[in-house]
Amino acid sequence: MLIVPEKDIADLMTRDAAFDAVEQVFAAMASDDAYNFPVVREAIGHEDALYGFKGGFDRAGATLGLKAGGYWPHNLEKRDLINHQSTVFLFDPDTGKPAAMVGGNLLTALRTAAASSVSIKHLARPDAKVLGMIGAGHQATFQLRAALEQRAFDRVIGWNYHPDMLPNIAKVAEDAGLPFEAVDLPGMAEADVIISITSAFAPSLMADHVSPGTHIACMGTDTKGKQEVEAALLARATVFTDEVAQSISIGEAQHAIAAGLIAESDIHQIGAVINGAHPGRTSDTDITLFDGTGVGLQDLAVAARVVDLAQKKGIAIHVDF
Amino acid sequence: MLIVPEKDIADLMTRDAAFDAVEQVFAAMASDDAYNFPVVREAIGHEDALYGFKGGFDRAGATLGLKAGGYWPHNLEKRDLINHQSTVFLFDPDTGKPAAMVGGNLLTALRTAAASSVSIKHLARPDAKVLGMIGAGHQATFQLRAALEQRAFDRVIGWNYHPDMLPNIAKVAEDAGLPFEAVDLPGMAEADVIISITSAFAPSLMADHVSPGTHIACMGTDTKGKQEVEAALLARATVFTDEVAQSISIGEAQHAIAAGLIAESDIHQIGAVINGAHPGRTSDTDITLFDGTGVGLQDLAVAARVVDLAQKKGIAIHVDF
Repeated sequence: MLIVPEKDIADLMTRDAAFDAVEQVFAAMASDDAYNFPVVREAIGHEDALYGFKGGFDRAGATLGLKAGGYWPHNLEKRDLINHQSTVFLFDPDTGKPAAMVGGNLLTALRTAAASSVSIKHLARPDAKVLGMIGAGHQATFQLRAALEQRAFDRVIGWNYHPDMLPNIAKVAEDAGLPFEAVDLPGMAEADVIISITSAFAPSLMADHVSPGTHIACMGTDTKGKQEVEAALLARATVFTDEVAQSISIGEAQHAIAAGLIAESDIHQIGAVINGAHPGRTSDTDITLFDGTGVGLQDLAVAARVVDLAQKKGIAIHVDF
Repeated sequence: MLIVPEKDIADLMTRDAAFDAVEQVFAAMASDDAYNFPVVREAIGHEDALYGFKGGFDRAGATLGLKAGGYWPHNLEKRDLINHQSTVFLFDPDTGKPAAMVGGNLLTALRTAAASSVSIKHLARPDAKVLGMIGAGHQATFQLRAALEQRAFDRVIGWNYHPDMLPNIAKVAEDAGLPFEAVDLPGMAEADVIISITSAFAPSLMADHVSPGTHIACMGTDTKGKQEVEAALLARATVFTDEVAQSISIGEAQHAIAAGLIAESDIHQIGAVINGAHPGRTSDTDITLFDGTGVGLQDLAVAARVVDLAQKKGIAIHVDF
């Protein structure tokens, strides 16, 4: 059994490796070679924590296991630990024996960033120049950094509910040599690609804030009740997602579905576009929207990649289990 | 983070420690200090394997985590590995960080044996003399060994669908200095305590095979469709279980419930008897029946105990995770 501790992940994992892993597993999901198990998510009644398991099996990648962990809201204030805590456990699908244990905190950030990045590669206009960010927290910096690699962007614009956080993303843009400008929400009409990464329970981006030809990645909604964009925007867009079942229940599409603005059959797996089974964007004026809900298979995919890298570098810890 | 590999469990864990752990967690479940999460169980479409997660949280014992693993039916023939493979992962309930990883194969056998043993302690007549075994496989030897410690039994009788397996349990009885006798199913009327531990899908023990005053522990039924005893026997008995929700859906009681012979409210938590909230057996002629379905909290409880023992002996493997 191999162990890759959290502290080794930053030196091992690359955005490229995370991108490849997530793109491959989305493709495997769309070709029925990989599937996610029912999610367990429990408010355990202690430390206000949410804890659970996201498991899955990727036959194509021979990856079986789960991410376990959750959200401990008092970790930072009480103990100087990050609030999101997760660990990935991989099993040998041929025998059921444990194969690896991998720190899941940084990997979760990287796989979430990779998902919007994969959607940009496959759905944004090739000539996209202006990247709009809604949200400027810690995770927003990961989404932005990964997105900038997918097109020849020449400018980043951003909005956040608390404007004092905008320097977080301004710094990423400037590190990449791009100008950054704070805008109001109607100002997002200038963007060719918009990434929304907030924990909001009411829409920020309205349908009329978005210009024809834009690609939007909604990355923040992963729970019943959360919402980042106006439901009418999904009706205006061609909608893609990682997993349709999550999209309609806990993803951004839950509201458009509940309002009867779109049907489940209007939502397409991003993997089908990767596989060539769905054309994706069909014109320069289409609005495309990716509802990134986050699935266990993404976690398993990036963890399996990091185990390979740790073995190649000879730094995986071997335990005779 | 601490690791206790499978190979160290046999030297660390005792039947006494397993008994105490299981008795305590059953009590915590009945006083709402501990609960099990929804079970994930998937036929993954590879190697005919069943794989899944049984999680839970015991606030009283500060134990949080899951058992992951399942059943790989070709392990033994193909690879000389046991078919049941499981691993227990414990987390710090205060922070969500992984606390321990423990081999779960022998622990599963011991916690299952402890459960029928706990039921005998709390429900069998104090003067029980004859122990009846239905089933003579590997797990039956664990159930028998643990049961013999609970009463001053002077004889073991046994039945198995394949009589050539009876020497497995005869040997355990003889090692304990007790005579063993093979009987037919009606011969179980001589038993004061009966343990059924088979994987049958049709009843072996009928209601009229059981004498007044008997305690029966049904330990084999953990899946929709399995059945060890006639449903009418549950109507004749006072029925106890580890977890009512599992008892009525995947436990032995599923059939009596489906047939309308008993209601969910007729099934009592064994923990309520341990806590003194339910009287348990009320006369020497009551028939008591324990429906042992197997819950994740049992696995966590014995794993937490083994981690304590490994730390005391200084053999837990420390990993800076």
